[in-house]
Amino acid sequence: MSSKTVEDVENEVRDWWQTGIIDMEPGKIHYGGYAIEDLIGNISFPTMIWLMTRGELPSAPQAKLLEAALVSAVDHGPQAPSIAIARMAATCGVGLNNAMASAVNVLGDVHGGAGEQAVALYHDIAQRMDAGQHMTAAVSDGLDHQIAEHGKHVPGFGHRFHPVDPRAPRLLALVSEAAQEGHVSGRYGEIASAIEAELLARKGKRIPMNIDGATAVIYAELGFAPELARGLFCLSRSVGILAHAWEQTQQGGRNKGPIPRRMIWNYTGPDRRQVPDSAKS
Amino acid sequence: MSSKTVEDVENEVRDWWQTGIIDMEPGKIHYGGYAIEDLIGNISFPTMIWLMTRGELPSAPQAKLLEAALVSAVDHGPQAPSIAIARMAATCGVGLNNAMASAVNVLGDVHGGAGEQAVALYHDIAQRMDAGQHMTAAVSDGLDHQIAEHGKHVPGFGHRFHPVDPRAPRLLALVSEAAQEGHVSGRYGEIASAIEAELLARKGKRIPMNIDGATAVIYAELGFAPELARGLFCLSRSVGILAHAWEQTQQGGRNKGPIPRRMIWNYTGPDRRQVPDSAKS
Amino acid sequence: MSSKTVEDVENEVRDWWQTGIIDMEPGKIHYGGYAIEDLIGNISFPTMIWLMTRGELPSAPQAKLLEAALVSAVDHGPQAPSIAIARMAATCGVGLNNAMASAVNVLGDVHGGAGEQAVALYHDIAQRMDAGQHMTAAVSDGLDHQIAEHGKHVPGFGHRFHPVDPRAPRLLALVSEAAQEGHVSGRYGEIASAIEAELLARKGKRIPMNIDGATAVIYAELGFAPELARGLFCLSRSVGILAHAWEQTQQGGRNKGPIPRRMIWNYTGPDRRQVPDSAKS
Amino acid sequence: MSSKTVEDVENEVRDWWQTGIIDMEPGKIHYGGYAIEDLIGNISFPTMIWLMTRGELPSAPQAKLLEAALVSAVDHGPQAPSIAIARMAATCGVGLNNAMASAVNVLGDVHGGAGEQAVALYHDIAQRMDAGQHMTAAVSDGLDHQIAEHGKHVPGFGHRFHPVDPRAPRLLALVSEAAQEGHVSGRYGEIASAIEAELLARKGKRIPMNIDGATAVIYAELGFAPELARGLFCLSRSVGILAHAWEQTQQGGRNKGPIPRRMIWNYTGPDRRQVPDSAKS
Repeated sequence: MSSKTVEDVENEVRDWWQTGIIDMEPGKIHYGGYAIEDLIGNISFPTMIWLMTRGELPSAPQAKLLEAALVSAVDHGPQAPSIAIARMAATCGVGLNNAMASAVNVLGDVHGGAGEQAVALYHDIAQRMDAGQHMTAAVSDGLDHQIAEHGKHVPGFGHRFHPVDPRAPRLLALVSEAAQEGHVSGRYGEIASAIEAELLARKGKRIPMNIDGATAVIYAELGFAPELARGLFCLSRSVGILAHAWEQTQQGGRNKGPIPRRMIWNYTGPDRRQVPDSAKS
Repeated sequence: MSSKTVEDVENEVRDWWQTGIIDMEPGKIHYGGYAIEDLIGNISFPTMIWLMTRGELPSAPQAKLLEAALVSAVDHGPQAPSIAIARMAATCGVGLNNAMASAVNVLGDVHGGAGEQAVALYHDIAQRMDAGQHMTAAVSDGLDHQIAEHGKHVPGFGHRFHPVDPRAPRLLALVSEAAQEGHVSGRYGEIASAIEAELLARKGKRIPMNIDGATAVIYAELGFAPELARGLFCLSRSVGILAHAWEQTQQGGRNKGPIPRRMIWNYTGPDRRQVPDSAKS
Repeated sequence: MSSKTVEDVENEVRDWWQTGIIDMEPGKIHYGGYAIEDLIGNISFPTMIWLMTRGELPSAPQAKLLEAALVSAVDHGPQAPSIAIARMAATCGVGLNNAMASAVNVLGDVHGGAGEQAVALYHDIAQRMDAGQHMTAAVSDGLDHQIAEHGKHVPGFGHRFHPVDPRAPRLLALVSEAAQEGHVSGRYGEIASAIEAELLARKGKRIPMNIDGATAVIYAELGFAPELARGLFCLSRSVGILAHAWEQTQQGGRNKGPIPRRMIWNYTGPDRRQVPDSAKS
Repeated sequence: MSSKTVEDVENEVRDWWQTGIIDMEPGKIHYGGYAIEDLIGNISFPTMIWLMTRGELPSAPQAKLLEAALVSAVDHGPQAPSIAIARMAATCGVGLNNAMASAVNVLGDVHGGAGEQAVALYHDIAQRMDAGQHMTAAVSDGLDHQIAEHGKHVPGFGHRFHPVDPRAPRLLALVSEAAQEGHVSGRYGEIASAIEAELLARKGKRIPMNIDGATAVIYAELGFAPELARGLFCLSRSVGILAHAWEQTQQGGRNKGPIPRRMIWNYTGPDRRQVPDSAKS
């Protein structure tokens, strides 16, 4: 203790905040070791997203595939709670940053977590294959495990609005192309298709891959951790959230509620008379 | 610089975070100088709120008046964006703390700021009186100034749903009682009533004081800064936000939208054909 | 379908938002069936919190016990991430409501969830006793189950700062008093003490009950669901969050960082030369 | 009223949520009139951001300039409150979406608003020029007006850490190139340079353009409303926020505070003895 120096204490404080993401000195900003002035104008925004979250630069075809996933999930309209919340928030006298925060915040396990769960499911099936199972058996066991652990909703498959989600086949086609050109393995696209086939066989009707299942294929092919599937979805959906908050700002309104004002909610509770003396203070 | 000691650096770091609110050592927690074990069981929750935000303890009658204000603003039902947001968030797979955050976040200038603005208006009128104006002239000039600076909505007065807000007269009666007993001056209750009278004279119809105007009278009487009127409203409304998030959790639902699913929003934009080559990358 | 009336559709929309918490008509606001004007001035703020979250009024002694728990958890100083976040947010040009939201939002499983988990643990042990086990065995089995499922941190016990948390014994004493007077069963206080004894026996040193374990005793005694233990903690901690955000506002500062400006973080990543052509777009 | 039909009511409800951003039917998702399956794989992520916020597609060079701005502002390290908050939140047991929300939320007037304010300043100066003033006079009058209205901090100029911000000259060079090629007017780049010159003349030292001033030039050149400058900054900074939250998740930690645990804050308040009876309830 007695031998501790001023520099030791300063380093202790600096070490409390360690990062490999950004290096800074006066006049110098480097991300993952690259100078910002070399990145600006030379790399795409998805490439930057990859560098920041992965610590290294992707190839151009990898970045293109990531870009397709980011483009695909920006918005699903005001029936999505995230979008409705952004629009309502925009009428309450807060900034666009606040409206975005209230909305991104609800992209939780149910609203924004299906992609993360789907990547984990694909990983689980791939590990079963690595351990020697054929794909069909691995998919069946993986699904059984998923349903036993997390319930009947298979993440990434089925949609209550779209019989076929127009985004999924388009994204899968891009994965196939990239696999044929050797940019990704194509393995996770095959696993996802096998899940779709297994669900059809089990249910007797098609439970088509949805946007979460399709973007999860891309994120798995590109080597993103499951948790980042949720994070990347948040980046993508933030675009729609911002767009709707801004459109609502231009439309105006004050304290916008969910339904037209003349239609108030239904009260389902009791009618009571007087506050009993026993509860008074 | 060379003479700086280890202790100097440690103090520099500690001083970066200074507070007069809480004093802590292992086994010791004091708020505003009072030991937590003496506060627990001896003071009311509103008294604690006062101590934390003001740095000193109120008298029991002051705390009672604060308590009435806190009780009065807990909820205004699912048509309030804060409440609808809390309920929608609760169906998205996030914790109650997250649902509360998304909702409290929208208590901004329009949804939660009227109390703050009303306290500021009352202060402005009181200062005009301190400078020698009669109340009637001060109210008239204060209102003119308010409208010129901030627009036609006079904060704290008028309601689009309640012709008379049942909370306001009850709160005002408590202020009058407290004034008669010498616990508060009563001055801000009189100013608020004079504003109501002036608005009636100007508009030819009653623009009755609402909950924000009434709680602002209490906060002004008790000496809270205008900004804290918003903060105290957030504490109060957090109760309704929590209650609705929890009720919705028990009702169930996944990704609850604002209107029944079969009624999708109206699209008001253009129909277009193909993505032009000029926009492709 | 053809026989659907205008009223049917209006009811369908109204039914999308059902609540037993609040009943409203122009000029009428009832919470849980009680008129707001009868509640204001007659019931305490904790009583209102109970009514909103439980749908019925507590007795005065029950409300007093809830009040003690709410008073006890308001703040743990700027080393708590929730408090540091509130203070930093307050220097970024957002409202107090926004600063509160960013802070309450982080009261998650690790920061705000211990109370919820402790109530669940107490319930589990109580159920084992209801099924016929003696308390000692039920506590031992309950702890084994807890550790197997959730890891070595037993929620509600142990503190990295306080050897003895001054809040816990005070709260427990209030529970004992209330049990002696017949207002609560006292059962959960006994279970919590038995856990403390079992942990001492297992570890050979005292792992004293902390604030989460002690408030969880109160919440369990009062019949609150585990999830509400987290919600009530959010209400309590919101007070400290507001107080610190407001104090920081008065101290001033712009974009306050976590450590003094001259001590920047340590960069742990690579140094690189040039952006490779393969990553350019 | 009697003639209202079921369809009228359904349309009333649907009209409560109007948008020109997204058109949806089962199996159909169009953004701004374009089919999602035509957008995916064909347009860049920045192009999608433009389409969503502006309602039409940009040219490829316009999208490139937007992309440069989005790449440039992703991160400024853990001394920025937004980044520190994201990292602290990630240790509290919440999801990445929640950590992102708490952080984006603080990009308010001080932390995230400088770009918005700078665009507004540039617009003001441009309008003075449209009204006939020479640039030098317009800049001088615009600055005087800005300082009188909003105080001495000129938004977009000066930095407390970087003597020269390496991002600004790089972005300005891209604007010049685009202007030479006729993709943008170049007017706002000139205005910003004239502000820099005027500030040098007034202060006798260089107050160089910072990242907010430089991205504001791009946003103004591209025709974005000032409010969207803040929104676009939120999208950009969300990348760094996600990256740091994820890195912290991997580093581990529970309830990370701002400074090393052994250095607790300095208490600046009073020491008191006993809770006075007058405050007890």
